[in-house]
Amino acid sequence: MIELGSYVSGTWIKGKGKAAELVNPATEEVLAVTSTEGLDFGAAIAFARDKGGPALRAMTFTQRGEMLRAMSRAIHAKRDELLNLAQANGGNTRGDAKFDVDGAIGTLAAYADLAQELGDTHVLVDGDGIQLGRSARLFGQHVSLPREGVAVHVNAFNFPAWGLAEKAATALLAGMPVISKPATSTALVTHRIVEILVAEKLMPEGVLSLVCGGAGDMLDRLGGQDVIAFTGSSITAAKLREGKSVLLRGTKINVEADSLNSAVLGADVEEGSDVMNLFVGDVVREMTQKTGQKCTATRRIYVPKDKVGAVIELLRERLSAIKVGDPTRDDVTMGPVATASQIRDLREGVKKLESCAKIVFGGATDVNPIGVPAGKGYFTTPVLLHGENPKAGDAVHEHEVFGPVATVMPYESAASAASLVAAGGGGLVSSVYSDDKDFIRTMIVAVAPHHGRLTIGSSKIAGQALPPGMALPQLLHGGPGRAGGGEELGGRRGMALYMQRTALQGDRAIIEGLSGKK
Amino acid sequence: MIELGSYVSGTWIKGKGKAAELVNPATEEVLAVTSTEGLDFGAAIAFARDKGGPALRAMTFTQRGEMLRAMSRAIHAKRDELLNLAQANGGNTRGDAKFDVDGAIGTLAAYADLAQELGDTHVLVDGDGIQLGRSARLFGQHVSLPREGVAVHVNAFNFPAWGLAEKAATALLAGMPVISKPATSTALVTHRIVEILVAEKLMPEGVLSLVCGGAGDMLDRLGGQDVIAFTGSSITAAKLREGKSVLLRGTKINVEADSLNSAVLGADVEEGSDVMNLFVGDVVREMTQKTGQKCTATRRIYVPKDKVGAVIELLRERLSAIKVGDPTRDDVTMGPVATASQIRDLREGVKKLESCAKIVFGGATDVNPIGVPAGKGYFTTPVLLHGENPKAGDAVHEHEVFGPVATVMPYESAASAASLVAAGGGGLVSSVYSDDKDFIRTMIVAVAPHHGRLTIGSSKIAGQALPPGMALPQLLHGGPGRAGGGEELGGRRGMALYMQRTALQGDRAIIEGLSGKK
Repeated sequence: MIELGSYVSGTWIKGKGKAAELVNPATEEVLAVTSTEGLDFGAAIAFARDKGGPALRAMTFTQRGEMLRAMSRAIHAKRDELLNLAQANGGNTRGDAKFDVDGAIGTLAAYADLAQELGDTHVLVDGDGIQLGRSARLFGQHVSLPREGVAVHVNAFNFPAWGLAEKAATALLAGMPVISKPATSTALVTHRIVEILVAEKLMPEGVLSLVCGGAGDMLDRLGGQDVIAFTGSSITAAKLREGKSVLLRGTKINVEADSLNSAVLGADVEEGSDVMNLFVGDVVREMTQKTGQKCTATRRIYVPKDKVGAVIELLRERLSAIKVGDPTRDDVTMGPVATASQIRDLREGVKKLESCAKIVFGGATDVNPIGVPAGKGYFTTPVLLHGENPKAGDAVHEHEVFGPVATVMPYESAASAASLVAAGGGGLVSSVYSDDKDFIRTMIVAVAPHHGRLTIGSSKIAGQALPPGMALPQLLHGGPGRAGGGEELGGRRGMALYMQRTALQGDRAIIEGLSGKK
Repeated sequence: MIELGSYVSGTWIKGKGKAAELVNPATEEVLAVTSTEGLDFGAAIAFARDKGGPALRAMTFTQRGEMLRAMSRAIHAKRDELLNLAQANGGNTRGDAKFDVDGAIGTLAAYADLAQELGDTHVLVDGDGIQLGRSARLFGQHVSLPREGVAVHVNAFNFPAWGLAEKAATALLAGMPVISKPATSTALVTHRIVEILVAEKLMPEGVLSLVCGGAGDMLDRLGGQDVIAFTGSSITAAKLREGKSVLLRGTKINVEADSLNSAVLGADVEEGSDVMNLFVGDVVREMTQKTGQKCTATRRIYVPKDKVGAVIELLRERLSAIKVGDPTRDDVTMGPVATASQIRDLREGVKKLESCAKIVFGGATDVNPIGVPAGKGYFTTPVLLHGENPKAGDAVHEHEVFGPVATVMPYESAASAASLVAAGGGGLVSSVYSDDKDFIRTMIVAVAPHHGRLTIGSSKIAGQALPPGMALPQLLHGGPGRAGGGEELGGRRGMALYMQRTALQGDRAIIEGLSGKK
């Protein structure tokens, strides 16, 4: 039995007491155990703050970028091993595992590229300087400098590689040391990545720590220069927001919560067109990739009333081709969900959705997985529902089923489509498929305030469109309301969480000298 | 007896039940009463959201700017009346009242100017577009659109005019309707301003509402598109952060909390120099303006060890010239604090500071106010303390006395000065006085991460420097940690709170058409 350790205070340490189990969700075999009992979280935080922070702040953006590039390359060098781990511990198909691991490699590389733009300096200049007095001498300039604390990253089970990397890339480039806490159930991949990076000595001591297991009292020990970045459920998010560090000491918190992302088909889109194919392909990919366990996956599908029947037929056809089973087999296209509690939640969730929609494909329990011991594994078919009369407050607008489950619903007009999308209470991403410029414009203006990202699928870009569920390092990842109100990635935008923006006010020569403008 | 109303749902309405009293803090005379009991807060919020929001969003930035310009002018036209009210209800000298009222007029005008830069459009373009695909067609662009909720502004008692205007200017230009809730004790000025603006019909219905008295259950009725902007104590801030709208529905909250702002004198600054005069002048102004009741006022004064005696002498000399009394008299230079509870807190607070410092000028009870009935009014002298051996955790680094009270302390080196400043746990603004470039650079890099604004007083700009306690519309107002972690003003930076930033992803021609770039 593998016993995982945490990497804190510059050393690998194993916890005592009762350990949590990491399983293979296809076979229910226990792959590893881990515990953080007895870890000195106070010392771990102090080590990151006092060793990692100054070392990182002494590096310029260019130097931090070189570190990120080396991290990206080191992960790439062990890609096959990591893909295998992701398949074993995450229920991932090879494609799912690549989406996660290549996402990590690519995001670190993208932030390494951004570092080159930021240059060989320590200060991020924010906007133009402003003349404040009667002469040009009295000058104001906003600058950003790294917060002098630690960034604690609490990640979700679905992206053990990308989740680590996308948060770490942003924080490290900004200049903050990181303590990463993956979800315990799928932590094998994160654990191995940190092992690789530590063994290669790519970061100064204290710059990257790993807590593999429960977070103990770590979050309550944070202060006003520290940051929490969380990805996961809104219930856990509410608990973190109530923590005394956040309430009383001004610890910054950023939340990415699961949301009810939608896809909207324009009335102008004809069957057989490039845009219809793009729409159907995107919906099926977002439903089934990573067995629907993506915070950006599409949950609600809005279709003009007269196209509902045809769209359901197209989706059923594509979903019938999905092969569920042991994700290490080449003929399998969808693996299990990640844990026993996920499959329980999924079955209960589908029942909730049945209060306002009926199943038109699959069923949460109706599955015969390929290549799996009888009765083992956390499997489901894809489940497509049809809600005939959607309205705000319905289960489909309130409850997310975190798996390969989505609901097709009709709309009457652009305005009603927009208001149904908004009824989801805020999402990470939605997508609109149309070539009708007026419809697109109406949808963007009405729907954008409820989302962090919006993809528009139209015929001119149908051949090269990126799927809506793919978070890109250049574009913001986050959304308002139910989605948590956070902002990650988006190039330098995501760095704001880890830096203090300060207005400097004084002699222009002195301020420009500091900010490296002169 | 004047009975104040609230302006909600497009009408003035008076509350029932027990009313709160607004007094003249110099004479303890009751000037007005107000209550919000029985107000329908649900209807008030819905009216702002459903009437004010769409009306405002239909206006371009240019049109919103014209509205702000008209508001600024309408307030300016009644300036004398407002100054008189501020003097009666706020304990303000004429200068204090101008600082508040002219601040309101100027901030609205500054945002009217900013509107012209933003142009005749509804969409705020954020940064450059990004090529995402293999051709230039597939394109990403961040844009900001107004949140579709209401902005509830909870203001502090010390700035009834500026507090209303600085928050409203930013929110209204962004495109969000405002419900403003001034502190009840000094609400006469805010109430009169809203009366003026409503009578002149300068805003569409629902764009600006006023809640004059308790907020009832208003904040718990907010949702994921709504915003709370709060200025006040960190204790109240923690309560607001625990509200169920913020915890569970993703209501955005911005906090400006009182902080322990500091002033640091460089070792190079000689007695009699322009920089020493600037330093002494700033410290005395920040201590005594508005009777020290500014969230930006200086509370901690760090001086090289060998200059402590001289600085205390210079400050005592200037503080001796302060005349405390009825602030409507021309010979009075400092009025009372605003309320009975403020003077109680101040006296208790000075005792706390005496645990680590001794009084070297004045005394919280040792005052004979000029022109005031015997035993009446909430008066204090300025109080200067001297802490000989400052260290983190001392009362002076933990407890803010919200009045004309500050503590002089020694430091040994630039590094120790920076760490003492940081011991305050995060502030809105600090100031550094020096012509030594190395010292300034060290201080900026070490101190900026703990502050939202930093002023540098040097000889080249001594003749035109703006006081550190003056928040400027062009520069950020807010600070990390104890100061609440918020960001207000700073030109378009403050508008981010009221807008959703969204990454648009699709055909370049469509996206540039929408964002007005083409």
